[in-house]
Amino acid sequence: MNSSGSTPLGSGPHLEMALEQWRDLVGPENVILDPARLRAAETATFGSNVAVPAIVRPGSRAEVQQVLRIANEWRIPVYPVSGGCNWGYGSRVPSATGSVLLDLSGMNRILDFSEDLAYIMVEPGVTQQQVYDFLRERKSGLWMDATGASPRSSLVGNAVERGFGHTPYGDHFSHVCGMEVVLPDGEAMETGFERFEGARTGPLHRWGVGAYLDGLFTQSNLGIVTRMSIWLMPAPECFQAYFFICDSEEGLGPIVEALRPLRINGTLSSTVHIANDYKVLSGMQQYPWEEAEGRTPLPGEVMKRLRKQLHFGAWNASGGLYGTRAQVAEARRLLRRALSGKVNKLQFLDERKLRLAARFSGLYRMLTGWDLSRSLELVRPLFGLLQGVPTDQPLASAYWRKRTPPPAAMDPDMDGCGLLWCSPVAPATGPQAEELVALAGETLLRYGFEPAISLTMITERSLACIISITYDRQAAGEDEKAWACYQELLRRLTDAGFPCYRMTSQSSADLPPSPGYDGVLRRIKRSLDPNQILAPGRYLAAE
Amino acid sequence: MNSSGSTPLGSGPHLEMALEQWRDLVGPENVILDPARLRAAETATFGSNVAVPAIVRPGSRAEVQQVLRIANEWRIPVYPVSGGCNWGYGSRVPSATGSVLLDLSGMNRILDFSEDLAYIMVEPGVTQQQVYDFLRERKSGLWMDATGASPRSSLVGNAVERGFGHTPYGDHFSHVCGMEVVLPDGEAMETGFERFEGARTGPLHRWGVGAYLDGLFTQSNLGIVTRMSIWLMPAPECFQAYFFICDSEEGLGPIVEALRPLRINGTLSSTVHIANDYKVLSGMQQYPWEEAEGRTPLPGEVMKRLRKQLHFGAWNASGGLYGTRAQVAEARRLLRRALSGKVNKLQFLDERKLRLAARFSGLYRMLTGWDLSRSLELVRPLFGLLQGVPTDQPLASAYWRKRTPPPAAMDPDMDGCGLLWCSPVAPATGPQAEELVALAGETLLRYGFEPAISLTMITERSLACIISITYDRQAAGEDEKAWACYQELLRRLTDAGFPCYRMTSQSSADLPPSPGYDGVLRRIKRSLDPNQILAPGRYLAAE
Repeated sequence: MNSSGSTPLGSGPHLEMALEQWRDLVGPENVILDPARLRAAETATFGSNVAVPAIVRPGSRAEVQQVLRIANEWRIPVYPVSGGCNWGYGSRVPSATGSVLLDLSGMNRILDFSEDLAYIMVEPGVTQQQVYDFLRERKSGLWMDATGASPRSSLVGNAVERGFGHTPYGDHFSHVCGMEVVLPDGEAMETGFERFEGARTGPLHRWGVGAYLDGLFTQSNLGIVTRMSIWLMPAPECFQAYFFICDSEEGLGPIVEALRPLRINGTLSSTVHIANDYKVLSGMQQYPWEEAEGRTPLPGEVMKRLRKQLHFGAWNASGGLYGTRAQVAEARRLLRRALSGKVNKLQFLDERKLRLAARFSGLYRMLTGWDLSRSLELVRPLFGLLQGVPTDQPLASAYWRKRTPPPAAMDPDMDGCGLLWCSPVAPATGPQAEELVALAGETLLRYGFEPAISLTMITERSLACIISITYDRQAAGEDEKAWACYQELLRRLTDAGFPCYRMTSQSSADLPPSPGYDGVLRRIKRSLDPNQILAPGRYLAAE
Repeated sequence: MNSSGSTPLGSGPHLEMALEQWRDLVGPENVILDPARLRAAETATFGSNVAVPAIVRPGSRAEVQQVLRIANEWRIPVYPVSGGCNWGYGSRVPSATGSVLLDLSGMNRILDFSEDLAYIMVEPGVTQQQVYDFLRERKSGLWMDATGASPRSSLVGNAVERGFGHTPYGDHFSHVCGMEVVLPDGEAMETGFERFEGARTGPLHRWGVGAYLDGLFTQSNLGIVTRMSIWLMPAPECFQAYFFICDSEEGLGPIVEALRPLRINGTLSSTVHIANDYKVLSGMQQYPWEEAEGRTPLPGEVMKRLRKQLHFGAWNASGGLYGTRAQVAEARRLLRRALSGKVNKLQFLDERKLRLAARFSGLYRMLTGWDLSRSLELVRPLFGLLQGVPTDQPLASAYWRKRTPPPAAMDPDMDGCGLLWCSPVAPATGPQAEELVALAGETLLRYGFEPAISLTMITERSLACIISITYDRQAAGEDEKAWACYQELLRRLTDAGFPCYRMTSQSSADLPPSPGYDGVLRRIKRSLDPNQILAPGRYLAAE
């Protein structure tokens, strides 16, 4: 990876020279060598063996450019992160050992915003919470889309990783445009109409004119996105969440078949999130060590008991309806009709119902013995996510197998949480969804992990599945077992025709080969990054 | 452009050698040197000075690969076209003189189709009519999107040029995925999940995993797309077209302001097409030479008289509503409310009404003196386009300034029609739409052309405007005047902040400079096409 060939990566006199120049550039306080902080940057929610020799924190695009020029001069690889919240996929850990971490979180300005044209232009350090607060302070009528990663995660980081959220703007890369990019050699460029001085349509029109290059800078190591416009959605006149469960494990196929037509015809304008029992339980509580009498994986009869006791199904789905009162009413009618006979409970929830429920939860408990307030505690964050309100509640599931409860300030990396996300995509058909789930379930259980699975109808035609391998990194041997399980799962999914939409930072070598595409990407990489200094090994196995 | 530097492009012994090898490869009948056919390939709807030394017609991807290898060997530039119906933007005429035309229209297989997952996989020669017929024969419940270019135009060609149509799938590049591409050196690659052997999600999920490269092969000269999947939309339970006119020339701004919120909130799920009086008139008939007493451009008072006489407005809009009966009824209510007081007539039309009108048009004429059947003749194709039914009726407007009527088999290139399309994008706000229209109107009128303008609300936030410069190429001096007008218009639009979304094949040098982007594109071009043989000068000025 280091074309100079003479010095081990990330050490030696070359690194010292680079560090000195970086200190001059960004100030010594922004070149971090503190061992504890370096160790944190080397730590993800699964085992990795990557040394981070330094962290550099540029404050502007010009500084990013200069940092890269220095990196080229001394042939030091750098690995950019925005929020660093890439949980389950490697957090902040670089793809190649010896890479200096380029921490962009200090570049956190909101550069432009339009209420009428419904967009916001941000730097990579801008967090979900920051945009949410910005909109609230302005009493804006616009909503952002949020992921459940964390309020402090980066919008740009998620979009360039092609992550997704829960509202009609859930497919993030479909709702951004006009990038500013710093290339590996320190040159800068802009995409779409942003590239023309004075153009008014940079934040509004994705393709621009001529070759559309934005895609090059997603899931890649070809450039650092230092600015982008993100589209916002107008708050609808009416919003309702829907939730349904299905008690039968065989229920998934019919549900997918019922929902696909509503997704394709636009009745459901947003992602539908379908979770199995393991996924729901790990969102509600930690591993039930007592009920399971210390055994892992969770015995089937314990799961069945808990499903009944805690009122969730083998399959559990949620989504949002957005529009005028009449539009939402019609969507509700169509959803009811489509799911009739296929699910055990279909409930619609709006702000008013939620408030009522909160007010009467004590009474309800007295009458039924069922503690509604606990359910409300779990429903509230999801209800919020469907409206683009960031939350860190889903992060608690990373503590599933831990013996101590999640702390108030959760840090899955440093708390020894084990979490690996495998994210295959399937056609949105019932039989194929079932096939994928069976394959994942069999594999994880064989390794002793609970197959917590969600299937998101991310587009009209495909399901993005997230299979979580959740474990306790402090338990001996678990890191190795989880990694072996992940590797086998990846291989089996690929062989079955379900490749993943996203890989961990340590998994590029596991991408199935595709000679034509790989060759083109390598040629482009060499043309833009002759010294191979930007994120070597990221989404492209080192040569 | 020719890196060998020794032989003039497209002539001499190198060309002879290439032609001989191409003949061996694709058969002599598919290497065309007939002067009449070459002249046709050199002829667009505006003046150009490009020599086409030969036309080569490969029949398969393997042949395209081999054609390019031979082109590289002999350093002969080639210029690919699919349907060749790029009217107004250069038809089939290559960007650089001496380029051999690579005619892909013979690669016209439909390779895959799914009714449930609503897609079709096609080669570049597949035409709009072909897919339309394919769906009808199968009694499919799916609709394609169509442009008004021509039933024989290519779906792939339009998508890679990032053209647009009229249904909710109108933004074509947003609704395609899984490309197969032949690179300039003859290597082949696939994009998205298509690139993995056996993956099931190639036609269903756009991004795949790793860098998203599809955009590289749109509006570019980096590869030849030989296959792609195109998404189809399910025919809705209910479809209604809407039409409205506004008599006031000042009406555009308020209309755009009224419609943008409905477009952003998804009530209007498809493009809205807004045309000025010139655009409508040129779609209804040829230039009214008699009423204008031979004068050009069309005198204002004649236009006013014709507007009254033929029942159209200063602004005229159309679009479609798609959904269940209730969804369409609600959209109708919201549209009515938004446009109230801003337009002079808002009408909704469905199949039933259209049939009724046809049946009673004689009676109607007797009672009102207004010949409805003529209106129906004009409405029917537009009504069809809103449902993805291809038509060549809009093509007739290319004959606007001709002294003889359009022939039954229209061929604007060979019939001497003058047509130049300039297509700036504006933010979807009233004031900016008005500013653009004023600028275009002033420029065209000054050159003596009628400023026929349409504004399409192509996305939620932007307007794609098509400004037609329509003239008679057989009138002396008109070619030069039209080109000068186009050049000035381009320059003024760019200076005002409204760059175009698409350029003619002869206009790459007129793209405003953007050093960062241009540099990256050139580096990629050099890495993929070291001999610069693929479509030199297309969307990237020659070096």
